[in-house]
Amino acid sequence: MSLVVQKYGGTSVGSIEKIRDVARRVIETKKEGNDVVVVLSAMAGETDRLIRLAQEMTETPAPRELDVLISTGEQVSIALFSMAVQSLGYKATSLLGFQATIYTDHSYGRARISEIDTRRIMEEIRKDKIVAVAGFQGLDEQGNITTLGRGGSDTTAVAIAAALKAQVCEIFTDVEGVYTTDPRVCSKARKMKKVSYEEMLEMASLGAKVLEIRSVEFAKKYKVPIHVRSTFTDKEGTMVLPEDKSMEKILVSAVTYNKNEARITITKVPDKPGTAVKIFTPISEAGVVVDMIIQNTSAEGLTDLTFTVPKVDFKKTMGILKKVAKEIKAERVLGDENIAKVSIIGLGMRNHAGVATTMFSTLAREGINIMMISTSEIKISCVIDEKYTELAVRALHDAFHLDEEPHGR
Amino acid sequence: MSLVVQKYGGTSVGSIEKIRDVARRVIETKKEGNDVVVVLSAMAGETDRLIRLAQEMTETPAPRELDVLISTGEQVSIALFSMAVQSLGYKATSLLGFQATIYTDHSYGRARISEIDTRRIMEEIRKDKIVAVAGFQGLDEQGNITTLGRGGSDTTAVAIAAALKAQVCEIFTDVEGVYTTDPRVCSKARKMKKVSYEEMLEMASLGAKVLEIRSVEFAKKYKVPIHVRSTFTDKEGTMVLPEDKSMEKILVSAVTYNKNEARITITKVPDKPGTAVKIFTPISEAGVVVDMIIQNTSAEGLTDLTFTVPKVDFKKTMGILKKVAKEIKAERVLGDENIAKVSIIGLGMRNHAGVATTMFSTLAREGINIMMISTSEIKISCVIDEKYTELAVRALHDAFHLDEEPHGR
Repeated sequence: MSLVVQKYGGTSVGSIEKIRDVARRVIETKKEGNDVVVVLSAMAGETDRLIRLAQEMTETPAPRELDVLISTGEQVSIALFSMAVQSLGYKATSLLGFQATIYTDHSYGRARISEIDTRRIMEEIRKDKIVAVAGFQGLDEQGNITTLGRGGSDTTAVAIAAALKAQVCEIFTDVEGVYTTDPRVCSKARKMKKVSYEEMLEMASLGAKVLEIRSVEFAKKYKVPIHVRSTFTDKEGTMVLPEDKSMEKILVSAVTYNKNEARITITKVPDKPGTAVKIFTPISEAGVVVDMIIQNTSAEGLTDLTFTVPKVDFKKTMGILKKVAKEIKAERVLGDENIAKVSIIGLGMRNHAGVATTMFSTLAREGINIMMISTSEIKISCVIDEKYTELAVRALHDAFHLDEEPHGR
Repeated sequence: MSLVVQKYGGTSVGSIEKIRDVARRVIETKKEGNDVVVVLSAMAGETDRLIRLAQEMTETPAPRELDVLISTGEQVSIALFSMAVQSLGYKATSLLGFQATIYTDHSYGRARISEIDTRRIMEEIRKDKIVAVAGFQGLDEQGNITTLGRGGSDTTAVAIAAALKAQVCEIFTDVEGVYTTDPRVCSKARKMKKVSYEEMLEMASLGAKVLEIRSVEFAKKYKVPIHVRSTFTDKEGTMVLPEDKSMEKILVSAVTYNKNEARITITKVPDKPGTAVKIFTPISEAGVVVDMIIQNTSAEGLTDLTFTVPKVDFKKTMGILKKVAKEIKAERVLGDENIAKVSIIGLGMRNHAGVATTMFSTLAREGINIMMISTSEIKISCVIDEKYTELAVRALHDAFHLDEEPHGR
């Protein structure tokens, strides 16, 4: 007898019939002798519908009330799901955030889970019930409803799996697992059998959308095995696990890309202490998260500073910087929205030289100019002209032979 | 500085624009120097939409999960309302049943409020906020969501008004108050300035739909003044109050009708002890509520027994009785769905004779046959052929001069 947490996303519960299919699938797991806790998202489109209602009311809905509004989406899903399970002859109960006692901080719209009191969930499991928990929502210390942000149901599932010490957290989605790259871009993309938390974290932050990044952080912290798999087939998906020896043998595991950033350059910045502070403080105060930052070697006391920001924040940031540039007596501010970041990720990079060279020469061979480079222990990212994105992804996927099943993995 | 509870029904909050109108109206009350607690229903049509979803899933949704599902309707309303108030520059907060701590018993779908812990509501009021409480929903001792049944938001409002010792509970609706009879049936129907709890209770149970009966019981028990008025005008509506001297001077205050009952007669029932038990026990066990019961004087040890049941339970009850009739050796079971109950209500009946005579002679003059009669201290009901309903209502309204403003009332 083991305990399994399963999470189903919005498309998996997008209609009455699909919810019934999910109920059948959960019952199968139950019949195999497992206790099952199911975490559900809102029915596809429902959260957007609710947000539109709020926007019709006011351009700036209060975050607290927005959370009260949009958390109804998951409430509807778990109620309908429990009805479905019961109509198929099995016991079920739904639990909202306040009933499953999922405590978070006070950050409406992007709350972080602080603690889960598992007593109520365990009580229902002991009554042999399938327990359906509303994803995405929690409760702060004052008893206010909070939500965890987009993709938050993944985090709910992993956090519950951690709290219950579940054998596995299965994330059911509309893809069959985690791929070496985006299959829509590269037809040779291969589903990986397993991937480490570290690689998955890099992939999530570099543009792969299959798992919400905080859920991976949670899984890594509490060593929860995640199984990413398809709602619509019985095939094995991808296991996200602590790294092991076999994983380190692979130089590069995956190629990702991200078209959601824009590049900004400030030219001829006087190179003296405190300048960077003057540039980045107003940007961060405006809530803009800067990603890559590159500063050229100074010439004649002047330097060029280049960095990337999310495309949605591009105009706002340009506005801020035009003022700052005057103050610090820089030459001018240049912006480019037509860029993409292409990255390679792999645990093996830690111990192997030559990976960067292969990446750069591959891009060069295709005539792709590299605008910016940033590296970490297990990834290399290059900013390139957006129009070459797909070409770069396919070339890198080929260069590192990602279509071939790795040995021992 | 006084405290006012206002309740707005589904049509009053039926769209974003209407919710904004309600917000403006509430703010007016606030600006007059009152603390305001607002109880809202679900947006018109929303509860029905959610029930349809449940019915698509299963014919017999579990009552617990149905309550989880349909309670989202009010959650959406209070969130949008709070946003509306805030966008107009005032402070507001929404509170769900579990946050306003409205405790009920365990009867899903028709729960009764047992206690309201007012601490959280008072805390928000002290912060000068307009507090929007979800109507219709509560919490049982185990922390499960319950709902109070159709019209339950009225009860929520009155219960909160009682708990907070509010000056008045204003029920905003799509009619302008409580009328002497249904204005759609009788053009001379007059809006009453005030009516006693006792009369309002009789009116609610005899077919007037303006207030949910349990809310009136609550108001009577805790002496909460109710003001029934229109969302769409500023006119004074009708006060529902403890009876006073002036009210007793009026013989008849209102005429009501109810077309939702059916009549059943069992003929030649052997008139011996225990027969009534054999007839009514299986009916009540099937959840059918019997209203009027009439038993004729026995002749030759046999009697005819006639009673009324809700039309929706007619077929079920006929089925049960056909079996029972055989067992007790009665002659046969007759049913009639084409009946209506017409009633007159007034505190003055207690001390005045002649009211019944006027009612019977009025109906006789119109050629309307009376099939059944039942009376209480302050009402007389007659069952008649359904097709005469409107005629009877108008004739009685005229006979008791209900179109004329009473003296001292």
